[in-house]
Order: sequence, then structure tokens, then C-alpha cells
Amino acid sequence: MAVIPDFDLKVRAYAELMVKRGVNLQPGQLLMLSAPVEAAGFAHTVMEVAWEAGAKDVLVRWGDNTGGELRLRHAAIEVLRDIPAWLAASYNDYATEGCVFLALDTEFPPPAGLDPEKMSASRIARMQATEPFTEARMQGVVRWCIGSVATAEWASLVYPELGAGEGLAALWHDVLFCTRCLEDNPLAAWDAHIARNNAYRDKLNAAGFVELRFTSGLGTDLRVGLPGGYYFAGSQETDSHGDPYIANMPSEEIFSAPHRERVDGVVVASKPLFYNNTLIEGLRFTFKAGKVVDFSADTGAEVIEKLLATDSGSARLGEVALVPAESLIARTGKLFYTTLYDENAACHLALGASYPESISGGLEMSKEELEAAGMNQSLEHVDFMFGTPDLQVTGVDAAGIETPVFTQGTWAL
Amino acid sequence: MAVIPDFDLKVRAYAELMVKRGVNLQPGQLLMLSAPVEAAGFAHTVMEVAWEAGAKDVLVRWGDNTGGELRLRHAAIEVLRDIPAWLAASYNDYATEGCVFLALDTEFPPPAGLDPEKMSASRIARMQATEPFTEARMQGVVRWCIGSVATAEWASLVYPELGAGEGLAALWHDVLFCTRCLEDNPLAAWDAHIARNNAYRDKLNAAGFVELRFTSGLGTDLRVGLPGGYYFAGSQETDSHGDPYIANMPSEEIFSAPHRERVDGVVVASKPLFYNNTLIEGLRFTFKAGKVVDFSADTGAEVIEKLLATDSGSARLGEVALVPAESLIARTGKLFYTTLYDENAACHLALGASYPESISGGLEMSKEELEAAGMNQSLEHVDFMFGTPDLQVTGVDAAGIETPVFTQGTWAL
Repeated sequence: MAVIPDFDLKVRAYAELMVKRGVNLQPGQLLMLSAPVEAAGFAHTVMEVAWEAGAKDVLVRWGDNTGGELRLRHAAIEVLRDIPAWLAASYNDYATEGCVFLALDTEFPPPAGLDPEKMSASRIARMQATEPFTEARMQGVVRWCIGSVATAEWASLVYPELGAGEGLAALWHDVLFCTRCLEDNPLAAWDAHIARNNAYRDKLNAAGFVELRFTSGLGTDLRVGLPGGYYFAGSQETDSHGDPYIANMPSEEIFSAPHRERVDGVVVASKPLFYNNTLIEGLRFTFKAGKVVDFSADTGAEVIEKLLATDSGSARLGEVALVPAESLIARTGKLFYTTLYDENAACHLALGASYPESISGGLEMSKEELEAAGMNQSLEHVDFMFGTPDLQVTGVDAAGIETPVFTQGTWAL
Repeated sequence: MAVIPDFDLKVRAYAELMVKRGVNLQPGQLLMLSAPVEAAGFAHTVMEVAWEAGAKDVLVRWGDNTGGELRLRHAAIEVLRDIPAWLAASYNDYATEGCVFLALDTEFPPPAGLDPEKMSASRIARMQATEPFTEARMQGVVRWCIGSVATAEWASLVYPELGAGEGLAALWHDVLFCTRCLEDNPLAAWDAHIARNNAYRDKLNAAGFVELRFTSGLGTDLRVGLPGGYYFAGSQETDSHGDPYIANMPSEEIFSAPHRERVDGVVVASKPLFYNNTLIEGLRFTFKAGKVVDFSADTGAEVIEKLLATDSGSARLGEVALVPAESLIARTGKLFYTTLYDENAACHLALGASYPESISGGLEMSKEELEAAGMNQSLEHVDFMFGTPDLQVTGVDAAGIETPVFTQGTWAL
């Protein structure tokens, strides 16, 4: 691996990017920072940047994958279900405008032999206990951002052929490249990227399409109907005061929801899907009236079979996202084993739940109202990539007039 | 440095020692584990051992020296004073018999230029907020143990002449040596050590001394009166149910309280004292009727001057502790820059507060009652070593009969 010049400066620029553009921390605000103990060094850089940006306080919540795995293995399910009141309060007491939330994430080789029931009990108990805080994020009260930190463990997944040190260096290079932190002025590069991304978002929302059609040389030939009042969201979001933030770093996508009953044709995945500890290759779905009626996969088909059977919405689509083939993530040519990166490498669809904000007024609607409006409901949300360098995307309006959206894998609007 | 054979096994034995003898974790109990992020690897070993010993749950509280220093530097004093209710509850809700508390500690090069007022405000606020939990430890409701973990940062203090890797290896060797973890069966070695230590403790408590006299070739010639009802405590303590635990690892001392008004003569320190970020060498005190009336030091005298002026008790003694010259810590010949180790290298005294348990019934007495009984009161408690290989300690009973306690630096009782 080539050594990254000024590595420390670039890592610091990455921390700055997440603090200043990601959560958009303002002087006098509290930064809640979630970080794995394996990434303590980078977390300290984030803390420095936050204090210098005028944070009132920095509250650090250390994550610990190894310790968490031991707990899942050994603790009784009642213990995992029992979230202490102070722990819930340690999130929910910060569901206020004065707080922004930055989550540093990293990947680990998936542990074998954990009890799926215990895993799900633990996750659900924690989700339920901290719902007011999550709600505050979803409603734009608490600005938030999630970004990844390169660690030796994650590198062992992405670069199994390299030694630990070399793999880590290669992965840091990818992280800094994909987040535009190898450029001279990452903040300016992001501002330009967001401006471009917002412009496409606005064009899509103004075009009056009722359907998108996708075709690729791999065999994709799919018509995706859009629900009435659909809204395409881009990389930048706005909080309840209209202040901007970027919830995902990197973020290249513009996405909305397909109509749950108006998807027809064939879609062929262009990248392997890593889901439920399984690598699924050669994935292909056939849809009829919104529902998967046939599928095949070279590996991992049994995992997809289970996914489709989870509930009444897990065989229908909840997200359609446009990502150009020249996306920085695509350019690395790597599978990162994390949706945060992999979904930004290519146009993708998600089986399962839609995001309420994908139609106007959706945040105020009940699940029943959303479903009636064509918005899919499910416990699942699993993204898979089908974008290719030859992908054609065509928008169709109510009069049947066709407009090129992507030609040769990239924006034509 | 010689490589330590079976290093991983010995480190695991050290974790076992702290879990099984330190906090004496029983099946079905909760382990509250405090650990610095720099020592995450060792903390994981402790977690494994605790789960295998049948812990009901392991609650980890990650410490972070670098982050804490940044916060002290940047946060306003009001922010440091404001301890959230959930944080206090995250300790105080565990002030119950079902919980044991293990604190992993490590040292760091002291940060320069921190505001002492902010440091003290932060420490006091946290101490006050978590007083019920501390009280539960002090009353023997929650068994606790504090032990050290070797880190590169601590090694840079103890072995400044070595490179990072070599220094860390040398310091791990010291930690494992001083805690008897280089022996074949560390648990058995500790059981034998505790039996010896308890036997001396019992002899001291049965001897009926009213005064101890200390003389050494360095110039120490000191008479230390003991308060009525004094009690010598050893390395092993017992909780409110009479179950044993070892609060300090390592622990070689047997200690009680001097009478606050009955200390006379000269004491000459035998090791440098590291206090308030300052190395104090060549320290010598003259006492009259319990109070320091004169002192000198080759370096750091101004720090001692401030210490003595802190309050009405900081120029009097709160602890007298007997440690034989053959103590494992003494044998390393090193200064560890942490009281946990350094005080176990030699006989020592502490300026400042006495421990209430050093007289019978002391835990139930008010500060005024304790002081009236001769037990010194102060905000400070600063240990300094004066033990030497030629130290003589003589016990004197009410009839004036003298009994050798130490000859040539070690036990003669």
C-alpha cells in the first residue's frame, strides 16, 4: 500500500467533516458521541475538534463489540431484556434541540453460534427503551450522523489477503477517499457534492414521474411505480428548524419509496449482498404487482427465502435509490460488508420497510395510512445493489412521456 | 527485556485473581467493571473470567484519560459541576449486596496547565453525586477491588529509558510479579500471603501496644502514639456478611491510625514522593505533639508547603502502615508513580485523613467523635515511604515494655 501523505491531517479533516457538516455542531451544543473502544484514537480526534468548535460538553458512549458478544453469549435472556432506567434516561434525557448525535461505526467479523432469539431480544429491548431519543432523531429534533472508522477487525473482512497493518492502511485509504478527505479541502468538496446532489434531487421531485424503468445488460428490466406524493431525499437533510445536516458519511444516494403494489419485472443484483452473516451471490428477483414471485441465487438462497417469509412486507420493496456509477465508493471496487458504504456504490433497492419521509406528510401518518398510500411496511429493510455502468433509468410521467434519468449508469436529467 | 513465558496465561491468571479473590465474585452477582479504554484487551479477559465464574451481568464503565483531560481543559466549570441524574443513578442504583466493583487503573503522564479549580470542582461533584455507592463500598455492602493494568502510557513514566514496546513488556512483568501472577498457582500464593498477613495483623492487634517507635540509618527516629481502640487492618477485608475480599492488588501492608496529637520526632523518606505532578526528593519531617513543625526537601518543597497548609489536619498523620523490606514491590526497585504500588514497597505514613475503620466502632462515629478519639480529619491523604532495609520498629505497651515488631526492615513479632 502507498503511504497516505499527511495521514494525521487527513484523519483530522475527516473528524472535522463529521462535526461541522455531519451533525453541524453549533457553539454551546452538546455532542453525544458513540464510539467503539477499538477506535479510541479517532474518537479523541473527534473530541478535540468538537471542543474547538465550541461544544458545551461531549458525552462519550463507548461501544464494545467483544464485550457485547460475550454478554450475548453468557447473559440470560431476562438480563438482556432488562434495560435499567438510568440507561434509558442516558439517551432519552438528551432528546432535545441542544444535543447532536455522532455515531462512529466499524465492522467486525460476524461471531458464530450466537442465539438469534437473545440477539433480537437484546436489540428490541434497547430500541424500545431509547425510543424517545430515536424519535427525536427521526423528527429532526436531534441532528445526527453516522460514519465509519477503519479498524484492524474491519480490515480483516475487506482485505483478508493483506496483513493487519497493511489492511488497516488500505481501509483507511478507502474511508478517506470515499468521504472526500483525500481532497485538498474536504469541507468545500462536500459543499459542492451536496449542491450537485440537491440539484438532482430537486429535478427528480419536479419531473412529475409516476414510474421509473430500469434496464441493464445483466438482465435487469424493471418498472418501479412511485406512490402519490412521493418525495426524493438526497444526502443532506434538514432538522426541525431547517438547519442542514448529513446523516450518513459517505452519502451519494437520492432515494424514495416504490409503490408497494406497482413493481414489475426482473432485477439482477450487480454486487454480492452480505446479509445475516451470509454472502449472497448471483441474486435475481422477479416481481409481479409489487411482490417477489420468483428468485434465485448462486449462494445463500436459503437466507433470502427466510427474509422473504419474515412478514407480509418483506417480499415487497421499501426503497429505490439512485447512485451514479462514478460514485467514489463504486470506484474502489471493494465490498465493504457494511450498508453504509455498499449502498452508496450503486443504484439499489431495499426489500422491506419504506421511510415515512419518502412521501409528503408521511411522518404524521399511521402505519395503516402509509400502507394505504402505497408505502410498504415490514420489520425488515435489506438493501441490495443492482446498478451497473450500463444502467439505463427512464422516468415516465402520468401522460406516458419518457425522460432519461440515467444513461450509461449516470445522471442524464 | 526477557520475554514472559506463557504471557497470555499469566495475564488471565491475574484477571482471575482479581475476580475470584479481589472482589470475590459469586455466581448470580453483578460485576461493575471500570476500565480505561487503553486497557480494553485486558478488560475483555476480565469479562470472560467473570462470565465463566457465573456473573449475572457485567456492567462496564469505560474510563478515558485523554477525553477526560480534554473535558477539563475545555468545559466550563458549571458543566463540570453538573452531574446528570442518570449518571449518579448509574452508580447509586448498584449500592446493593448483589453488586461487586472492580476498578482497573493505569497511570498517565500528568497533563500540564489544567486549572486546579476545575479539576477539584469536577472531582468533588462526582464524589458527591455518587456518595451512596462509595458509602456502600466503605460499609462493606459492595465488595470492591482496585488493580492496575500496564499500558504504554504508564510504562513511559516507569521506564522512560526504554522504547514503548520494551517498556510495556517490562511493566507487565512488574505488575505480574508484584501480584504473584508469575508464580505457578497465583490463587494459592495469595491464600498463603493473606494467611501470613492476617497472622501479623492479629498479633499486632493482640499485643496491647500504645506506641510504635521507628528508627533507621537514614535518620528516622519517630514515636507514633496509637489512639484508644485502634485496629490494625491487613490486606484482606470482610464485607457486611463476613465474606472476604481484597480491596487493593497488590497489597502488602498492615495499617492503622496514629493518634493525631501523639507523634514526635523525625522521619526521613526513603523513596521519592510523586504528588500533585511533582517529584519530591529528600523529604524529611519533624513532628511535635502530632504536628509537622519543620520539614525540608531537595526538590518539590513548595508542593509540600501547600499540602501542609490545606487544612487543620493536613500537617498531622492519618495512617501508619507496616510493609516488610522484602515486599515484592520493594524488590523491583522501581518507583511506579502510583500509590497503589509505591505504598506497598515500604513502611509508610500518610499526612491527612485517617480511616474510620482504624478504630473499633469508627464507622459509626461522627467526624467530631473521631477527632475527639484522636483520629485525624482532613481533605488530604498523602502517603510517603520511610521504610528501609535497616528499619527497626518497636512496640511499647501501657507499662512501657518494649517488643521488637520489625528488625532489619522485616517482621520480628
